[in-house]
Amino acid sequence: MSFSVDQIKASLFALHTNKIFELTVIAIIVFSALVTGAKTYEIDSTVGNIVVWLDMFITLFFLVEVMIRLISEPRTLDFFKKGWNVFDFLIVTASLIPVDGNETVLLARLLRIFRVLRLVSIIPELRILINALIKALPRMGYVVLLMFIIFYIYAAIGSFMFDHINSTLWGNISISMLTLFRVATFEDWTDVMYETMTEFPLSWIFYLSFIFLTAFVFLNMMIGIILDVMQREHEQYYRETGEGEAGEVHWIKENMIAMDSRLDRIETLLIENVNKSTK
Amino acid sequence: MSFSVDQIKASLFALHTNKIFELTVIAIIVFSALVTGAKTYEIDSTVGNIVVWLDMFITLFFLVEVMIRLISEPRTLDFFKKGWNVFDFLIVTASLIPVDGNETVLLARLLRIFRVLRLVSIIPELRILINALIKALPRMGYVVLLMFIIFYIYAAIGSFMFDHINSTLWGNISISMLTLFRVATFEDWTDVMYETMTEFPLSWIFYLSFIFLTAFVFLNMMIGIILDVMQREHEQYYRETGEGEAGEVHWIKENMIAMDSRLDRIETLLIENVNKSTK
Amino acid sequence: MSFSVDQIKASLFALHTNKIFELTVIAIIVFSALVTGAKTYEIDSTVGNIVVWLDMFITLFFLVEVMIRLISEPRTLDFFKKGWNVFDFLIVTASLIPVDGNETVLLARLLRIFRVLRLVSIIPELRILINALIKALPRMGYVVLLMFIIFYIYAAIGSFMFDHINSTLWGNISISMLTLFRVATFEDWTDVMYETMTEFPLSWIFYLSFIFLTAFVFLNMMIGIILDVMQREHEQYYRETGEGEAGEVHWIKENMIAMDSRLDRIETLLIENVNKSTK
Amino acid sequence: MSFSVDQIKASLFALHTNKIFELTVIAIIVFSALVTGAKTYEIDSTVGNIVVWLDMFITLFFLVEVMIRLISEPRTLDFFKKGWNVFDFLIVTASLIPVDGNETVLLARLLRIFRVLRLVSIIPELRILINALIKALPRMGYVVLLMFIIFYIYAAIGSFMFDHINSTLWGNISISMLTLFRVATFEDWTDVMYETMTEFPLSWIFYLSFIFLTAFVFLNMMIGIILDVMQREHEQYYRETGEGEAGEVHWIKENMIAMDSRLDRIETLLIENVNKSTK
Repeated sequence: MSFSVDQIKASLFALHTNKIFELTVIAIIVFSALVTGAKTYEIDSTVGNIVVWLDMFITLFFLVEVMIRLISEPRTLDFFKKGWNVFDFLIVTASLIPVDGNETVLLARLLRIFRVLRLVSIIPELRILINALIKALPRMGYVVLLMFIIFYIYAAIGSFMFDHINSTLWGNISISMLTLFRVATFEDWTDVMYETMTEFPLSWIFYLSFIFLTAFVFLNMMIGIILDVMQREHEQYYRETGEGEAGEVHWIKENMIAMDSRLDRIETLLIENVNKSTK
Repeated sequence: MSFSVDQIKASLFALHTNKIFELTVIAIIVFSALVTGAKTYEIDSTVGNIVVWLDMFITLFFLVEVMIRLISEPRTLDFFKKGWNVFDFLIVTASLIPVDGNETVLLARLLRIFRVLRLVSIIPELRILINALIKALPRMGYVVLLMFIIFYIYAAIGSFMFDHINSTLWGNISISMLTLFRVATFEDWTDVMYETMTEFPLSWIFYLSFIFLTAFVFLNMMIGIILDVMQREHEQYYRETGEGEAGEVHWIKENMIAMDSRLDRIETLLIENVNKSTK
Repeated sequence: MSFSVDQIKASLFALHTNKIFELTVIAIIVFSALVTGAKTYEIDSTVGNIVVWLDMFITLFFLVEVMIRLISEPRTLDFFKKGWNVFDFLIVTASLIPVDGNETVLLARLLRIFRVLRLVSIIPELRILINALIKALPRMGYVVLLMFIIFYIYAAIGSFMFDHINSTLWGNISISMLTLFRVATFEDWTDVMYETMTEFPLSWIFYLSFIFLTAFVFLNMMIGIILDVMQREHEQYYRETGEGEAGEVHWIKENMIAMDSRLDRIETLLIENVNKSTK
Repeated sequence: MSFSVDQIKASLFALHTNKIFELTVIAIIVFSALVTGAKTYEIDSTVGNIVVWLDMFITLFFLVEVMIRLISEPRTLDFFKKGWNVFDFLIVTASLIPVDGNETVLLARLLRIFRVLRLVSIIPELRILINALIKALPRMGYVVLLMFIIFYIYAAIGSFMFDHINSTLWGNISISMLTLFRVATFEDWTDVMYETMTEFPLSWIFYLSFIFLTAFVFLNMMIGIILDVMQREHEQYYRETGEGEAGEVHWIKENMIAMDSRLDRIETLLIENVNKSTK
């Protein structure tokens, strides 16, 4: 009976968009995070058992909740068209992997940690924040590539020159890149420098030029993001309200077109008038 | 006699809004800070006695000053409607807790330190600064929440994975979060990383992804504040003066409306004129 | 036969602007980078031989590619008028230096690393990025000079005062400048300070004032770049599209001039009309 | 003979505003800096003697140069009305202090270092930079005061609580402020924290809240400067050129006033016309 299915869908939709239900879900997510946190403390077996039972309850609750949202969708498969739904579904189903063997315990535990991320998918403000960050990513793509090239060249040079001095820092190009990342964060970078300066007294040029280049490119990256976010916010504000300066300028432009056509009519009237009175 | 009470209120109000009185209060606050600072030095008993007497004098002075401001208020209880007054009152009364027992000495001393904060409540520019900071807080709320979620997930993973390697750094989720804050400030973070890399050679992914994520979210937080403060200052400037670009645009808009109605009158006149001359 | 030369030039031009050829060049550059990276690992002689052959192939490929671009230029020497072409040519020819003697191996290797930089000259987005960075440089010139003066003065003072305390840190003005750069990056700067404070208890003023000055000047530098980049992007956007606020304001201005001349005509007409009807 | 004095003044003025003379002065300043730098190296007595003679020559040259500028001033004492002139005069005369006794050698040397600062007073672009920095200072005054209050309170608390744990770090309020500055620069701050956490396990709250507060206030300071500099540059650009968006808006406003009075005349003419034709 198609009607009854629609009814169920409607009532389930009403349930999961209910404010109290939403708050309950948020509370359970926070509670789930606390249970995850509790597991990192040394706990005796009684409390341990409670935690296991709580964990099962949370897993079931999330499963039911996702099912409700899945079923309440008018067309069931449309549920997977939204990225955040797929994200929720994966996190919830990943928790269902049975924790039998000893080696899977760690994996199951790790998968359960990511349930905290459901806070992001359920709180709209956090979702907006993440979407904004994702939108700002492409603008940085080429800057990240440029930074990688700088790291790669310096790591290759470092590896060729300093390998015999300290192979734990400059053993191969991957280790060198990690060492250079350390230098870029200023973490004990002088120890690294002083060591190579004993053999190559001019190697400070290597480090200082690297620090300047990465700082410079990083700054550019930062400015890129700032400009991008500012422009986007500005445009959105302009579109939504018409109240800001940009809105007023737009109003003036629109009004000027109207005023121009009115002046056109006045001029036509006057010319007609002049012609008439000349006749 | 109600009249005489009003007179007292008025003269007390005149006193505490007096410029010299205000400067005296500021001087006493600075002096109180110096006395607090002096107590951290080792001092012989004679000087110690003087400090105790000075302390009592300052406490009394502040008590009298707050009383004056409290009484001078037209309706006495309105005094507590302003947040800064409550702040002052609490700081002053907290100093009155008697310092008898040995264990309360430290508490009393700590409470007296906060009297320096009265500088903030008495200097208008500092009050404006603090108000601005407080107004910028809500905008950062969700970013802080996002940052906390990132810290929580990484701390849980770190605690599960690295506990057996170094339990003073990764013992439980709280200790792990502190360790991660240390990593986020780049403080000897490579020592933490190299230790876990001996067992998990790929654990640099854990640290680097964490550093990138926190730096990214922090940057977003910073931009959020910058944008917020800029927008607020811009709006305020626009409202107060009409001189800036935004003010001029607003003037143009207003003037355009007036010009439009004038053109309307001109057109009406012309049409009347045409009609008349046609007749 | 001049015609046939032109034909060759045209077909070579068609070849090197071909999308597939460009992607092949990018692929070979990346492959060349990987070969360079591979050389930093310890490899057995068989693989080592392969790497040598690969290296020769890459060198030849780049030589052929640059020759194609050089010949395909209508006037051959115009090729060297573009900075990026000169850059490519130098990198490619530098790889041709024969690797015979033992001492030149390192040099040849280092020169080959810079072939990765060809990625910058071949990907337009990276070229734009580098050009933008280069354009922002002059604005910073004087700030860098100011920063150098600050470093020089502090290094001279440090060298005169602290040389006898620790000559590895303050031996002469160059070493002192390196030590101060270390202080500016906050790398174990307190160790440097505590050491000199044993003899000069007030030397913290030296370090703190230095940190404040460099942070202040650096901030100014940063703001300089931000303002520069913002202004440039703003102007470019304004020029390219006419859609933004600045574009609309420009439109209003242009339109206002037209409207003014129209009003001029209307006024003239009216005055004529008045004169006529007076006659 | 008054005429001849004026002639001397004029020719001296022509001399010191001469481009070649200016470049010579800059060259001598740079040379003086190099001589200062050379003195920090260990040098044998022959070279040492040359350096002493060079030093005397530089001192004399600067004295003559300042005298020329002093005398060439139309009214001699007007020379001291410009801050940069006083700055130059003090630096030059300070170098004249005789270096006889052993104990004044260091002082004389230090005074000679500051001659490098004459680069700032002689290169106009550096002078503009310094002036801009000085103008941005007042806006930061209250933020610095707020930061100082935060440091003072935390230092007092730290001194009362942690003095008995480590008196070299928390001995009195001045030492504590230095330790807190170290914490604010993230320099081995965890070592400081872990030490106090052995006795006060919750003392991480002290450090984390301090780091958040100072970072927050510092950020505000930075934004303050950025906004200040931006606003100033914007206004200056607006005033100097009339080409930017702000300039165009201003042009539109001015033009609108003219247009309005023209419309006024048109309306008057029309009304007269209507009245006439009605008659």
